[in-house]
Amino acid sequence: MSIESAVERLKAQFGDRCATSDAMRNQYASNEAHHASAPPDAILFPTSTDEVRQIVELCNAARCPIIAQGAGTSLEGHTVPVRGGISLDMSRMNAVLAVHTEDMDAVVQPGVTRRQLNEDLRATGLFFPVDPGADASMGGMAATRASGTNAVRYGTMRECVMACEAVLADGRIIRAGSRARKSSAGYDLCKLLVGSEGTLGIMTELTVKLFGQPEAVSSAVCGFETIEGAVDAVIATIQMGIPVARIEFLDELQLRAVNAYSKLDLPERPTLFLEFHGSEAGVEEQAARFGEIAADHGGLGFNWATLEEDRNRLWRARHDAYYGVKAMWPGRKGYITDSCVPISKLAEAILETKAEVAESGLIAPMVGHVGDGNFHLAIMIDTDDPAEVAAAERLSHSIAERSLRLGGTVTGEHGVGMGKIKYMEAEHGAGYGVMAEIKRTLDPNNILNPGKLVSLN
Amino acid sequence: MSIESAVERLKAQFGDRCATSDAMRNQYASNEAHHASAPPDAILFPTSTDEVRQIVELCNAARCPIIAQGAGTSLEGHTVPVRGGISLDMSRMNAVLAVHTEDMDAVVQPGVTRRQLNEDLRATGLFFPVDPGADASMGGMAATRASGTNAVRYGTMRECVMACEAVLADGRIIRAGSRARKSSAGYDLCKLLVGSEGTLGIMTELTVKLFGQPEAVSSAVCGFETIEGAVDAVIATIQMGIPVARIEFLDELQLRAVNAYSKLDLPERPTLFLEFHGSEAGVEEQAARFGEIAADHGGLGFNWATLEEDRNRLWRARHDAYYGVKAMWPGRKGYITDSCVPISKLAEAILETKAEVAESGLIAPMVGHVGDGNFHLAIMIDTDDPAEVAAAERLSHSIAERSLRLGGTVTGEHGVGMGKIKYMEAEHGAGYGVMAEIKRTLDPNNILNPGKLVSLN
Repeated sequence: MSIESAVERLKAQFGDRCATSDAMRNQYASNEAHHASAPPDAILFPTSTDEVRQIVELCNAARCPIIAQGAGTSLEGHTVPVRGGISLDMSRMNAVLAVHTEDMDAVVQPGVTRRQLNEDLRATGLFFPVDPGADASMGGMAATRASGTNAVRYGTMRECVMACEAVLADGRIIRAGSRARKSSAGYDLCKLLVGSEGTLGIMTELTVKLFGQPEAVSSAVCGFETIEGAVDAVIATIQMGIPVARIEFLDELQLRAVNAYSKLDLPERPTLFLEFHGSEAGVEEQAARFGEIAADHGGLGFNWATLEEDRNRLWRARHDAYYGVKAMWPGRKGYITDSCVPISKLAEAILETKAEVAESGLIAPMVGHVGDGNFHLAIMIDTDDPAEVAAAERLSHSIAERSLRLGGTVTGEHGVGMGKIKYMEAEHGAGYGVMAEIKRTLDPNNILNPGKLVSLN
Repeated sequence: MSIESAVERLKAQFGDRCATSDAMRNQYASNEAHHASAPPDAILFPTSTDEVRQIVELCNAARCPIIAQGAGTSLEGHTVPVRGGISLDMSRMNAVLAVHTEDMDAVVQPGVTRRQLNEDLRATGLFFPVDPGADASMGGMAATRASGTNAVRYGTMRECVMACEAVLADGRIIRAGSRARKSSAGYDLCKLLVGSEGTLGIMTELTVKLFGQPEAVSSAVCGFETIEGAVDAVIATIQMGIPVARIEFLDELQLRAVNAYSKLDLPERPTLFLEFHGSEAGVEEQAARFGEIAADHGGLGFNWATLEEDRNRLWRARHDAYYGVKAMWPGRKGYITDSCVPISKLAEAILETKAEVAESGLIAPMVGHVGDGNFHLAIMIDTDDPAEVAAAERLSHSIAERSLRLGGTVTGEHGVGMGKIKYMEAEHGAGYGVMAEIKRTLDPNNILNPGKLVSLN
């Protein structure tokens, strides 16, 4: 069967849930970042696991690529249909299927977004902590092993996805993991699927850990005289075991964009956004201990956000950091880096990166989930200026190499997609070949998001 | 090449580090639990990754089974050479290679035992939390995805192994994971190897998370009027989010064995062993909150162990629980069950199990890492009494079925080995076939611990 006839059959079966107009195809051709674009042959909107199975079986028979996507907010070109085929938009599978308050877990369809889930949980006293900048879908977050500002305390999707259902390339439906808090029952297929970027299977259901809303929450912003001071304060905080819920770094340029976009007036200097969770006494104790550390490292005093609405405004501003950057430099595309290193190397990694940014002349504000050793540049490029694009590529390459040299990873939370595939051999050595073997075994026709994550050559 | 000639070549190369005497072969034929025994053809004692590679390459050429083992304390017959071949005793690869205090991780060889690592860490203010009953090896613990009393707070080997080096069946050496706290760089091969029980590769190095010694520690024992009361107190504690470091259940029969073996005189009733970690104030707060919960559920008051030596004595007694049982019923073999269910189902699981034990007339003390929903029976059987063996099998089977029915797993922490292989299809459905496909891909000649975990038929 040809791809054309597969699309025709899907059109007949799914009607207007199978879109083939140029306008729609263009919409699914690219995503938020700078990567090359390519349109799918069709966009499908399944509403059940069984529909996903039918679509996958047909695509497998037709050797037709199939690229699942959620909110389409990934930053490494994961959802670009580089070889055409079907874009599988999971956004209509967006039901919260069960909330087990007594076990602190929830079962969701992949199209549920993180904000939607937390809205649903509001009355339960529980929350789901993983929070990438965008209001991403749970399926997309699982597929890219996403994290965000809370990971330093609550873990990433790696830790928070307990179980999943997935449709494999041959149409088999598997359930991996369970609602038990731990298990030694065989290979951890759930953790294998989390982070596989739609290349091994299409997740159709997720069981995720929830956490109790802390009794007390306290948020603060603290500016520093120098970047070194801010970063060293973070390192000391982690090494002293203060259980911060969030500890985020923003440089002076990022602060300017945040101020403009979110209508804040924070001093434009190296800054940490912090949050403490615990009992009333526990939060006070954490804040006091951090206060001492900050004072030792050139901290310039705290702005506390004690009211819930002030806290929400602050963190919304942090989450909108990238949108702020895009608004400040309209017409430019973001080339986003994603270094993560052991915490002892964080100051070295950040300072060398800042020096390279200064030298390059590029516009590149920095934010970081620094408690995890993870930081990003949003290099804002004029894609029509080859010299600028080349400079951004050099800078990004240098950051990736430094991450590996310092014992870290080229991607802390954004994933491999198209953008990081060239570093996988360097990061994983012989293990990268093992990934390809697993891919070939589970998807012999290479229909699941081909051209991403693994190299089959 | 035949297995015999492979053994001859290994003998020539390794000299007295290749043992073939009957006495030695018998020693490696069985392990702590009730499973059938079978001797290896030879026992090898490698001292480096490269030696492991050489042995594996030779075994692969000769189609010779190779069964890695650490301390030999597994409970599901993992290390029994059911098809002969080479027992690979990793105990001489027992160096702590690096302790990165500033990053709170350590790099160890697989033969390092958990107590050895913690001895090594004593001066650093850090500790490694995963603590199965036995003084197991780190490699064995990683291979079985072990946990223990601290998992409710600090996680299991799944969470605590950040990276590993492994020799694959064809002799390739891979490094999976990194020292960065998080990563989205491709398939999580590290988590795939953790829990793979030596069937996908032989781990030759592990990087593990360490944690800061808590500023304050407080341990207590609390007896309860009824089992229901004890279990309900646990459930309430977890649901209220009290960050207990340890919360362990022992039934009255287990208490009797502990008292006798460890020379304690605790009242022989359903009992919780607890530990709180935190700041001085935090520990006091946790203890007070738990005290209220216990009072509400028929708790009969606390015995506090405030001195470090008293605490160590208490937890040593808990860790020696199984040895206490073996000493109290000498000549019998332990048939150990390992149910883990969602916490909301724990009371149901435990009470039904206790009722079945009473009905069966078997000797079967119960212990449990109840904060994780995990509990064990040590059914002490006379292996020469077929009726008793059959009754134990029926009881064990009923527990496994109940675990699945309640949304849990047939093995919370002991692994699959020989004992649980018959439940894998029921627990994983189509996913079990995927495990077999991965096994065939990475070990096409089925030399790595054949007959364990996966079924290749």
